[in-house]
Amino acid sequence: MTEDFGEFDIIRNFFTPDTRREDVDIGVGDDCAVLTAPAGKKIATTVDTLIAGVHFPFSTLPEDIAYKSIAVCVSDLAAMGATPAWLTLALSIPDADTQWLQSFSRSFSDTAKYFDMQLIGGDTTRGPLSITVQATGFVEPGHIMRRDSARPGDSIFVTGSLGDAALGLLLLNEQKIIDKPVFEYCLGRLNRPTPRVEFACAVAEYCACAIDISDGLVADLGHILEASQKFSQCGAEIIVDAVPVSSELRSYYDRVSNTSDNSPGAINWELVLCSGDDYELCLVVSEQQVSAVVSLADSMRLPLSRVGVINAGPGLQFVDASGESLTITKSGYDHF
Amino acid sequence: MTEDFGEFDIIRNFFTPDTRREDVDIGVGDDCAVLTAPAGKKIATTVDTLIAGVHFPFSTLPEDIAYKSIAVCVSDLAAMGATPAWLTLALSIPDADTQWLQSFSRSFSDTAKYFDMQLIGGDTTRGPLSITVQATGFVEPGHIMRRDSARPGDSIFVTGSLGDAALGLLLLNEQKIIDKPVFEYCLGRLNRPTPRVEFACAVAEYCACAIDISDGLVADLGHILEASQKFSQCGAEIIVDAVPVSSELRSYYDRVSNTSDNSPGAINWELVLCSGDDYELCLVVSEQQVSAVVSLADSMRLPLSRVGVINAGPGLQFVDASGESLTITKSGYDHF
Repeated sequence: MTEDFGEFDIIRNFFTPDTRREDVDIGVGDDCAVLTAPAGKKIATTVDTLIAGVHFPFSTLPEDIAYKSIAVCVSDLAAMGATPAWLTLALSIPDADTQWLQSFSRSFSDTAKYFDMQLIGGDTTRGPLSITVQATGFVEPGHIMRRDSARPGDSIFVTGSLGDAALGLLLLNEQKIIDKPVFEYCLGRLNRPTPRVEFACAVAEYCACAIDISDGLVADLGHILEASQKFSQCGAEIIVDAVPVSSELRSYYDRVSNTSDNSPGAINWELVLCSGDDYELCLVVSEQQVSAVVSLADSMRLPLSRVGVINAGPGLQFVDASGESLTITKSGYDHF
Repeated sequence: MTEDFGEFDIIRNFFTPDTRREDVDIGVGDDCAVLTAPAGKKIATTVDTLIAGVHFPFSTLPEDIAYKSIAVCVSDLAAMGATPAWLTLALSIPDADTQWLQSFSRSFSDTAKYFDMQLIGGDTTRGPLSITVQATGFVEPGHIMRRDSARPGDSIFVTGSLGDAALGLLLLNEQKIIDKPVFEYCLGRLNRPTPRVEFACAVAEYCACAIDISDGLVADLGHILEASQKFSQCGAEIIVDAVPVSSELRSYYDRVSNTSDNSPGAINWELVLCSGDDYELCLVVSEQQVSAVVSLADSMRLPLSRVGVINAGPGLQFVDASGESLTITKSGYDHF
């Protein structure tokens, strides 16, 4: 159902937030939002655009698009160690489809509430479906995780499991649904990624260097190495067998024949290491802090795997469990 | 010239800011920007999307698009009484045209510098041309100009002149270029609006209620009346002859025949009152503060016109200089 809503109707009908954070003095509805930043904290902010057909398939449900548009930004906040607070939404939609807007806005509101965030402003325009979210949060000045803080000797950790989102997209595109529970699990990981925000805010006390894995471990670890070069020559060695994969992904590759012949256990490691959209964290931890980080993850029941080490470089090397060198060719996902 | 730039190349090549504000701890290049808000100030933030073919003609030069994408946000900050500080840019472009990107990014950088702002983050995606800018600034807690603070008896002021941008668009679309200097002046007002940021930050000490005129005086004053209803019944009377128009607009209407018959001096008042894109300020000022506001404008050599009064309503009435009622039918511009 498409109705003739104007811009102001859309905002009034669909995007008047029902949660109120105490630090929001003026929210949606004036020329600007007016906000109070907490004393003594730094402000962290990030912006991400999701375009239909580029960042998500056209078939994606509006409630999943809304969830993901917030989650990818929250994941960036997590990667800095920041607690989420405020959201703006620039929404471009081809027509004012009431049902689509209802589903999108309800999920947007639920997701904001879930992360304790408030929508404070936005802009609605007619155009090809595109969602730009800016998320702002707060971080302790001494506990900011940066990309440029990797040093030789540091350990590389990864949360959760990698490759599920890419496998979900692959199965969706190829309609190769061999095992329904595996498909649904992977699709859930694609559409509803889990930003590791609580763990991130806690681990930032012990960890100086992190990035979220949105473009694939290879590309994102590459960003860490590149940024850290200004302080010291940095490379990395990844123990491919140590990279965490889900039992669902493993069971999928147990069943299908895999053309990739350099991969132990028939898993397609290029997919696991080079595909984006997992929104797990890659942490680089100094030797003195490794045990604190591992204990914290244990206490929060957060799956955390040590997947390699930073060395004096250059570049990124891959080895198997026995130390044999492996070749991973595909580079990370480029959204442009 | 179109080259095969990836997302990271575009950011590296075109959007590495050359200005550094002291309140930017981490700018472009990490998962988030990290910022220090000034103690004791409130944060004001606004987001606007400009889409090619909707908000600006496809023929608009990249340097004008870049300027305007910042200026419209700075105008929103001005309308709250906020000083500009930080910018993010979500840019969607159909292809990585080097020349276009060079012109756009150079103008974006120059404009940011002009307003003493820094680009702190963004996202570049491939898609139909669309520019979403979020601008953030700071405002004194006691000096926030809101939409909901109009009260019966207050005077309505307007800065600069109205209608020039709309006339520019009209002349551009109709290629009715009778007088080149008039056309160029009006096109300049369309493409390079002047946010009244210095005056706004100063006048906020004396004025509690403002909005920027982006959708036309009728629509934007309507927002003020609607927002202020929650405190007291509000209407407004506009003295049409007092609404400021430029000598260029006046000379244009002196030369062409005008179908609008209710307009003194052959000016098309519907165009002047109901068209958007002027980015002047509409201020609503209490009787006690009128002289302070007028003196301030005089001392800053800022053109300021008293165009009407807030009354106990309901609705918006138009009168001519002799007090005769006029009818203005067209409503404001709806971007959706």
